[in-house]
Amino acid sequence: MSATPRDAAPASRDRGRSADAAAAPRMRWWGWGVDGHDAPLPPAAEALLRSELGAGDAPRADPVALEEVVLPAPDLAGGARAALAAAVGPEHVREDRLTRITHAAGRSYPDLVALRAGTPPAAPDAVVYPGTSDEVLAVLASCAEHDVAVVPFGGGTSVTGGVEPLRGAHSAVVAVDLARLDSLVALDHRSQLATFGAGATGPGLEAALGAHGLTLGHFPQSFEFCTVGGWVATRSAGQASTGYGRIDELVAGLKVATPAGEIATRLVPATAAGPDLRQLLVGSEGALGIITEATLRVRPRPAERRYEAWSFRGFPEGADALRTLEQGGQAPDVARLSDEAETRLMLTMASDGAAKRLGAVYLGARGHGGGCLMICGFEGEPARVRSRRHAAATVLRATGGLPLGTRPGAAWERGRFHGPYLRDELLARGVMVDTLETSTTWSNLGTLYGAVGDALRSALGARGTPPLVMCHVSHLYATGASLYFTFLARQERGAELAQWHAAKVAASDAILAGGGTITHHHAVGRDHARWLESEVGPLWLDLLRAAKARLDPQGIMNPGKLIDGAALPGA
Amino acid sequence: MSATPRDAAPASRDRGRSADAAAAPRMRWWGWGVDGHDAPLPPAAEALLRSELGAGDAPRADPVALEEVVLPAPDLAGGARAALAAAVGPEHVREDRLTRITHAAGRSYPDLVALRAGTPPAAPDAVVYPGTSDEVLAVLASCAEHDVAVVPFGGGTSVTGGVEPLRGAHSAVVAVDLARLDSLVALDHRSQLATFGAGATGPGLEAALGAHGLTLGHFPQSFEFCTVGGWVATRSAGQASTGYGRIDELVAGLKVATPAGEIATRLVPATAAGPDLRQLLVGSEGALGIITEATLRVRPRPAERRYEAWSFRGFPEGADALRTLEQGGQAPDVARLSDEAETRLMLTMASDGAAKRLGAVYLGARGHGGGCLMICGFEGEPARVRSRRHAAATVLRATGGLPLGTRPGAAWERGRFHGPYLRDELLARGVMVDTLETSTTWSNLGTLYGAVGDALRSALGARGTPPLVMCHVSHLYATGASLYFTFLARQERGAELAQWHAAKVAASDAILAGGGTITHHHAVGRDHARWLESEVGPLWLDLLRAAKARLDPQGIMNPGKLIDGAALPGA
Repeated sequence: MSATPRDAAPASRDRGRSADAAAAPRMRWWGWGVDGHDAPLPPAAEALLRSELGAGDAPRADPVALEEVVLPAPDLAGGARAALAAAVGPEHVREDRLTRITHAAGRSYPDLVALRAGTPPAAPDAVVYPGTSDEVLAVLASCAEHDVAVVPFGGGTSVTGGVEPLRGAHSAVVAVDLARLDSLVALDHRSQLATFGAGATGPGLEAALGAHGLTLGHFPQSFEFCTVGGWVATRSAGQASTGYGRIDELVAGLKVATPAGEIATRLVPATAAGPDLRQLLVGSEGALGIITEATLRVRPRPAERRYEAWSFRGFPEGADALRTLEQGGQAPDVARLSDEAETRLMLTMASDGAAKRLGAVYLGARGHGGGCLMICGFEGEPARVRSRRHAAATVLRATGGLPLGTRPGAAWERGRFHGPYLRDELLARGVMVDTLETSTTWSNLGTLYGAVGDALRSALGARGTPPLVMCHVSHLYATGASLYFTFLARQERGAELAQWHAAKVAASDAILAGGGTITHHHAVGRDHARWLESEVGPLWLDLLRAAKARLDPQGIMNPGKLIDGAALPGA
Repeated sequence: MSATPRDAAPASRDRGRSADAAAAPRMRWWGWGVDGHDAPLPPAAEALLRSELGAGDAPRADPVALEEVVLPAPDLAGGARAALAAAVGPEHVREDRLTRITHAAGRSYPDLVALRAGTPPAAPDAVVYPGTSDEVLAVLASCAEHDVAVVPFGGGTSVTGGVEPLRGAHSAVVAVDLARLDSLVALDHRSQLATFGAGATGPGLEAALGAHGLTLGHFPQSFEFCTVGGWVATRSAGQASTGYGRIDELVAGLKVATPAGEIATRLVPATAAGPDLRQLLVGSEGALGIITEATLRVRPRPAERRYEAWSFRGFPEGADALRTLEQGGQAPDVARLSDEAETRLMLTMASDGAAKRLGAVYLGARGHGGGCLMICGFEGEPARVRSRRHAAATVLRATGGLPLGTRPGAAWERGRFHGPYLRDELLARGVMVDTLETSTTWSNLGTLYGAVGDALRSALGARGTPPLVMCHVSHLYATGASLYFTFLARQERGAELAQWHAAKVAASDAILAGGGTITHHHAVGRDHARWLESEVGPLWLDLLRAAKARLDPQGIMNPGKLIDGAALPGA
């Protein structure tokens, strides 16, 4: 308890980082990850797509060449450009083609369809790279003065249209890329608090913490590319959030630049000083301001990670086992339960065919032939991991689980960030693939699971493209759990967006009608905005509008997202 | 996971409850609890007050008789009275003297001083007892129409002026007492969710849950009288919140009546659908509306409760042991560490003198003569309690703790709600006694502890009434902890409020300057409002004002509290 001063972190600000390094795109412009990291499909998966979706016979459709992308001419007025250059330095205001294209879209299905076709619906007129919180404030002041809309840009991984460069009624739109704000700003080891610039990526943050023997434990599937600011702005959850907590539980303090000035929250562990300001800023999706720094709760890096697999006869039985674990305080840090369809596809996708077939025989013999795979991951000190595993195993056996050992668990862990890469390959083969997610109470989980699946099958079946719908539970709470759906169907060539729109509307309507939330961790962005009022009611939307009017009186911050959303693609 | 319908709770609404039963005061009008439940001081405590504070020689000062209380005539216009009577029934609008006096103040030190003297600074013109959420909406509409200010009233236990019947610029002021809204409205056992009317008290709620084998686990010191609505409105914490979580962590859903209409949050375990509406309503202290129902996370009632005591040589060592426990995930459900001064006073107050002397000899022999008492309470299944106790004990021994067994722990548990009764006795003896609380990071805890104590000693010493200042840590977080101060001094007869004001301002200034929060769980009310801007900044206050302007455009809701606070008593 001695009054040690707040540790000075060794990391320095990136003020001097070169413009080229900051502006180098992290992802290939048309898809996920970098060139060379591709995800070919195993033959069994190809066969499954063909037999179940009737997909895969069309010729392969690769993205157009970069030169073929159709881009409107940049439209930033001279005065605005000069003001932005004065705010951040001229080398940090970019209007080149590649920079604009890499900030033209996130990574939703409609985004990928448009990028691959070379027809992004919009692009920022320029991309600005501030190097400090004060520079972010200066950028916002310049944009307010020159009537320029602002889209905050972290990793660009949004799957809900959150970084769509919409200008609203403004004269131009710029993306503000936080890439240069990526430092460990302060570390208070005793209080387990670390302050990061908003642009720090998952791997950058974990490397900086790892040097101090610490971890945040936040691993969204987009971990390799997404950023601290994006996590906070979108109320993100990660694969280990059952154990480590969602980002809203990990945020201890925030610094946010708004057109009306800076908001910095006081760093206290708990307070009764009125409503919680942090929880208005967490999830504000750039519509109120730009998060520039976040102070996060960190923990000792786990000495051991153990991921193991279980099989359950059915999804209800497995979900009930997870409920028992969670409500008994015995849940693993990572807890996932795939339904029968997802389990089957995961086994098909697995490349180690021999082990897979062996497993199938074994499971069939035990009556789990069409069963559900559960992954349980425990992290921490070896002795604690051991005792927690033992306690959880007792519950899982008692609730009908069959242990499959660590091999499938380790395979899941190896492939935990692989999903988004696969989308690019599926799109090339004419397969529509998208995910959507919700949460609800335990008592409503089965009903909502059925309703959303039915809505997707019905909407896509009516178009002659019956889908494969799969689901998993991946975040446990005492009162309920998440449901994460993946659906695949043969693409309607030439009507890709209308097809997607039909599925998205049907599923979202079913979620709202069924008592779920429109999003458990993907955020609202543009694509969920039309369901927000159904979820939270008109008064709450009015309160958000009132907050925006105070912080962003000209409405330049991320127009068309969260509060008054633009129309869905394909509408 | 089967789709069981939401259990219908057997409890019926209290719509038919008699007017007299609902209006019967729960506490004696001038102090804590009911007549007959008094708290005489043991002789050793009397001697201590005399020797250390120079207090206790003045003649005993008992409260004035009820007839002597000076009360302004009720000032509710006929139109307003008729509208309220139409909203709730004429028998639920009360203007009698006892009802007005029992709603004239909370239970802060200035409140008690004024009540005992028979000079409450204000009183509501009437007290209204709605029986349903819709009636609360109707009451608010009537008040808005007739320019009547509204003070929501739960248990009336506020220690920060939160229920002071201030009318602001309005024509009259009514207290809206939620006593009739005290039912268990719904129970979803599978999802561990229970919905209560806002007027349910601690014992009423625990009895209703106990009938289903459940508990909420929320035990503020005011447990016997405070209410669900008050907990939520003030962002309350209880003695077992280290284990069960603060009320803000237990609230899953809310229904709130505002002058602009009703807000009901969607019941989902977690969501990324924008900023968290619940966390704007939790802690809103009646300034935005009246909470009428809360859905709370409940748990199985613990089969075992075990409270045991430890001794540490000093406060820093003890606090560090608690930090180690909490950050290692091994904290007890109740964790309290008293500093040397509080430990000494607790031993003096203990009535079992023999055991106490024995303990003192034992502790002296082990070098813990002037040590610090720690209470660790574990609740749950016997096997889990045993293993958790064992793990915690290993840590506590390793960090210098000396086990004192369950006897002092059981004594603490027996007396856990006793503190407020004691205040009445101390006031009768001419002793000023008040408490204040804050929280800060672990790395700042020692510094803030010293600064607040120094501020109180300096401010009261300068007035010739040097205080006894004591402190405990009672709520643990990974990133920090609470500090709860109690201070006693000889009352300045005739200048009681000026004396209190000097101490309050000095301590609060020290808290803000020292990086703490103005309140960890007592809320803002009137008495902390002047420090709120220092804590959260002017922009956040503006956002709260904007929210209030939307929900309460005429500003009738609890004027002078939270946002734009009235002056402190004694100023």
